[in-house]
Amino acid sequence: MSGYTKFLDTLIQELAKLPTIGPKSAERMALHLLKSAPQRSKALAEAIVLAKENTKKCKECNYFAEGDACPICQKKHNRDKVLCVVEDPQDVIAIESTGRYAGLYHVLWGRLSPLTGTGPEDLPLKQMIARVKGEQIQEVIIATSSNRDGETTAQYLKQLLAPLQVKITRIARGIPVGSNIGHIDKATISEAFDGRR
Amino acid sequence: MSGYTKFLDTLIQELAKLPTIGPKSAERMALHLLKSAPQRSKALAEAIVLAKENTKKCKECNYFAEGDACPICQKKHNRDKVLCVVEDPQDVIAIESTGRYAGLYHVLWGRLSPLTGTGPEDLPLKQMIARVKGEQIQEVIIATSSNRDGETTAQYLKQLLAPLQVKITRIARGIPVGSNIGHIDKATISEAFDGRR
Repeated sequence: MSGYTKFLDTLIQELAKLPTIGPKSAERMALHLLKSAPQRSKALAEAIVLAKENTKKCKECNYFAEGDACPICQKKHNRDKVLCVVEDPQDVIAIESTGRYAGLYHVLWGRLSPLTGTGPEDLPLKQMIARVKGEQIQEVIIATSSNRDGETTAQYLKQLLAPLQVKITRIARGIPVGSNIGHIDKATISEAFDGRR
Repeated sequence: MSGYTKFLDTLIQELAKLPTIGPKSAERMALHLLKSAPQRSKALAEAIVLAKENTKKCKECNYFAEGDACPICQKKHNRDKVLCVVEDPQDVIAIESTGRYAGLYHVLWGRLSPLTGTGPEDLPLKQMIARVKGEQIQEVIIATSSNRDGETTAQYLKQLLAPLQVKITRIARGIPVGSNIGHIDKATISEAFDGRR
């Protein structure tokens, strides 16, 4: 026998396409949905459709918005004239949660990557340049990932922004707070020494 | 700012209700769905609804079925007159995958548990008794979990089945294949010694 019913197999396959979800997790999730009350699984199905239909990108910074502008760009006149460039929308959440930053964001929705074939034309860079020029931005903080593609992207952005006479900075790399140096990789320790102050 | 849009927050909350999915995983899954093509998220939403609507329980053994009888009960005359009692439908998959068992199943969809308030009347036990009597079952293999509730359930089933003059067995406990004894808990090692043959 093959296993489950056709519809249950389809559900498991669809769930397994989600990030970090392996076949075993997908199976557990699918069985949980089948065991729970009908309104529970219906609520999830509706939430997927509604989120997809009603969540747009902010026309200024590409972060999530229900209307044209995200909550941050709606209040941009109260925020600092600093532009933080990030790869993903969840990076905005993470930075906002610190309460330490009061500037604007520009969400690239990706990074330069030879592997996935993502080139400069795939990222909203013209829009970024236009914002730096049009909004009297005083500093651009490049907050792309500290892996190879993130560094490549950061280098590319630096060169692209260089003619604009805006201050360009890169977020610091180092030992994460609460970490024991003995458990940190050599590359990070080197960066932490180079960046000491 | 609170974070995401209302609809995205709802989706993250619904995903976080799934087993093994924490808030961070739910966020990643939700963002993945929003980033992917509309037909991808639609396929998942539809799979949830279709699986819920079209997957029934087998009228004989309570395993999943598209019609009245599951694939195993449909061919029950080719299977051994042995009844394996399991807690969950995924246990059927796991046992079938071994290819070592050719009997029938009875899926309880749970186990006796003081914590969740699951009592004997919540499990399909009358149906199990009727099957043992009606189908000339020669042996009942109790394959409930080897934790406290699973053992309690096994003991209860043994008492319930005792008057029926059917052979009653319990699956063996012991060292999992490929495990080093040094890494196994004392209770399991004791069981492995008691069960030696």
